[in-house]
Amino acid sequence: MTSLPEGTRFAPPELAAAREKVLAHLRELYASWGYLPVEVPALEHHDASHPREAQAFKLTDKGSDVLALRSDFTPALARLVASTYPGVAGGERRALRLRYAGTVWHAHHPELAGTREFTQVGIELVGVSNARADAEIIHLARESVRAVGLAPRIEVGNPAYVKALLDAADVPYEHQLALADAIDRKDRSDVLALIDALGLTGRAADAILQAPDLYGDEGVLDEARRLAPNDAARLAVDRLEGVLTEFEDASELLLDLGLARRLSYYTGVTFRAFTLDYGQPLLGGGRYDGALLPYAAGFSLGLERLMGAMPREAGEAVITPQVLTLDDPPARRLRAAGIAVARATASEPGAAEREAEAARIPFLLVAGAVRSVGGAGAAGEARRLELQAILSGPRGDEA
Amino acid sequence: MTSLPEGTRFAPPELAAAREKVLAHLRELYASWGYLPVEVPALEHHDASHPREAQAFKLTDKGSDVLALRSDFTPALARLVASTYPGVAGGERRALRLRYAGTVWHAHHPELAGTREFTQVGIELVGVSNARADAEIIHLARESVRAVGLAPRIEVGNPAYVKALLDAADVPYEHQLALADAIDRKDRSDVLALIDALGLTGRAADAILQAPDLYGDEGVLDEARRLAPNDAARLAVDRLEGVLTEFEDASELLLDLGLARRLSYYTGVTFRAFTLDYGQPLLGGGRYDGALLPYAAGFSLGLERLMGAMPREAGEAVITPQVLTLDDPPARRLRAAGIAVARATASEPGAAEREAEAARIPFLLVAGAVRSVGGAGAAGEARRLELQAILSGPRGDEA
Repeated sequence: MTSLPEGTRFAPPELAAAREKVLAHLRELYASWGYLPVEVPALEHHDASHPREAQAFKLTDKGSDVLALRSDFTPALARLVASTYPGVAGGERRALRLRYAGTVWHAHHPELAGTREFTQVGIELVGVSNARADAEIIHLARESVRAVGLAPRIEVGNPAYVKALLDAADVPYEHQLALADAIDRKDRSDVLALIDALGLTGRAADAILQAPDLYGDEGVLDEARRLAPNDAARLAVDRLEGVLTEFEDASELLLDLGLARRLSYYTGVTFRAFTLDYGQPLLGGGRYDGALLPYAAGFSLGLERLMGAMPREAGEAVITPQVLTLDDPPARRLRAAGIAVARATASEPGAAEREAEAARIPFLLVAGAVRSVGGAGAAGEARRLELQAILSGPRGDEA
Repeated sequence: MTSLPEGTRFAPPELAAAREKVLAHLRELYASWGYLPVEVPALEHHDASHPREAQAFKLTDKGSDVLALRSDFTPALARLVASTYPGVAGGERRALRLRYAGTVWHAHHPELAGTREFTQVGIELVGVSNARADAEIIHLARESVRAVGLAPRIEVGNPAYVKALLDAADVPYEHQLALADAIDRKDRSDVLALIDALGLTGRAADAILQAPDLYGDEGVLDEARRLAPNDAARLAVDRLEGVLTEFEDASELLLDLGLARRLSYYTGVTFRAFTLDYGQPLLGGGRYDGALLPYAAGFSLGLERLMGAMPREAGEAVITPQVLTLDDPPARRLRAAGIAVARATASEPGAAEREAEAARIPFLLVAGAVRSVGGAGAAGEARRLELQAILSGPRGDEA
């Protein structure tokens, strides 16, 4: 049976090597900022209250438990913090920087056409709640996109602003999410229809109607303040401005006061990263104090989306070994110098040369000498001499 | 809900960092030998004929399909080869070197006490079937154990030898696995009981009884040849000897002609790696031509077992950032030099110093100057000067 379950795929070497490279870039970025790796199980207790419960694959366990496959990292990380750092989970103010990478599974409503296995990479800054922490997370979201050579555009907002408008307009709780969602989608006709249906009027209703347009550079902060019907809305704008002042360079940030996803979850600044040529967000995150942990902010990046936004050639790595060898001791010296050397499966030089040609390996190592396979140009000859020089150089750390 | 499903666990930073380090060592080792990365889905079609079917977690899909969680990498890799390299899957002789790392899940009969999520790392050398290929795989199994600082002991055998003895003794097929298993476990009383029960006599029965003792250095090859009742048994010994001649240094290899696991699966040389102080095999593999692919050999290493065999201190990595910073531009220079620098969440030097102390970060970077936090010894002062020198040096590649 060679067919794969719907929504899954193989990663052949070119793709797998490119994925490995992107993951390494992100890992190095987060590590260089002091983020520590953690791992959480893929098997979870099924939790009917999980925000993505409907998307989770359920498993029948041997016993009576119902299990689910991880569909999101954040709740699992909150459990890890509760287990490993109970003080921080209990409200202690202490910066805890965590990074993760792994698979999530979505049984229904796949976010990416047909895909049901995703790779998520992300960070969480737990135990701190201030503008510097928010700015650090947003900066690293921006750097994550830059790390793979893409030009980021980061939309930053504060759902507390929309929440304050809805409260000021006395929108009943059961209608708040629908209206917030229409604002977030910048669907002005839906917003207007809901305002009419709910009979909203006055200053707050006017601000709600204009919220989808509060989008652009720092000028929108003044506009948002002008529209603000109450102190809560003004405070939300101040908080957002406070985060912006933490940036040396805010040039790739775009403000969006209409950002109002997951209104009951995010409690502070939220953001999404895009590139100009790719329609879907590459990552999303924000502050969610009190939702799962007392103080926490973070983001989660979709590896498949990030790589989908990369130019096609950047998404495939060339990984053929450089040398095929019939001579083991010098091969060890080349490997110790970081050069990939495959061992010939043939045992005789003529056959090994044919093996190298068939596998497009440019050099053959026989009896201590590096030979070019097929016709080598000037660049090939220079490289051959470099390889030969490594064999003649001082002995290093061999494996 | 903070409890975890039975047989799963969190990896807090010390463990996760140590796992990351071991995985990186193995990845570099296999890459340096020309092995290319691949990825296969964790979700598979449920396959009742899968050798580990009883161990697989089943999933209820939305549609009519029954899915299973990956319980083993080899069948999935064979499917990847069939899909990506149909020529090789069809019998083409061409060396294809693949490496992988990922999770497998076992619902029942957990191999490691209670664990149901495992990390497997391994390689496959597909499209070749000769002694050099076998030796390469066995050597890399040995190097995998050495890569983490352990002293390997590799047990190498050839199940074709036991198979030849069983055939020579006319052991009915339905009893072959039980007898092979008793030989593999070196359980002489079980072997004797089965020989009696089956009424086996003569030269082949004698060889079967002695097979559990064919264990040790190259001398056992002669003994195995002396006992061999037929050409098939002698050929199996020759094949094993042929692999040994490919080694420059066979000192850590131990021959075991009684090795007879999965008799119907492995078709050539098989092996298991141990260390002296750890009871369970760290990895196992061998040649399985014809079982899933025309020509293939490989091994699979259990990351948890490998790390379980490591000294405790080696299984935890120290990963606290070295520097806490209030100054962003010089922090970028340190990060570009490979130094982990966390950004202070406090914005004022006194508070940042207390933050560094609480987090046990030894240096604070303020206004371009690196300061020691708390009392630094001579070594600390030397390190401080090194960090300061990086800030004064020529500008490099900053991120």
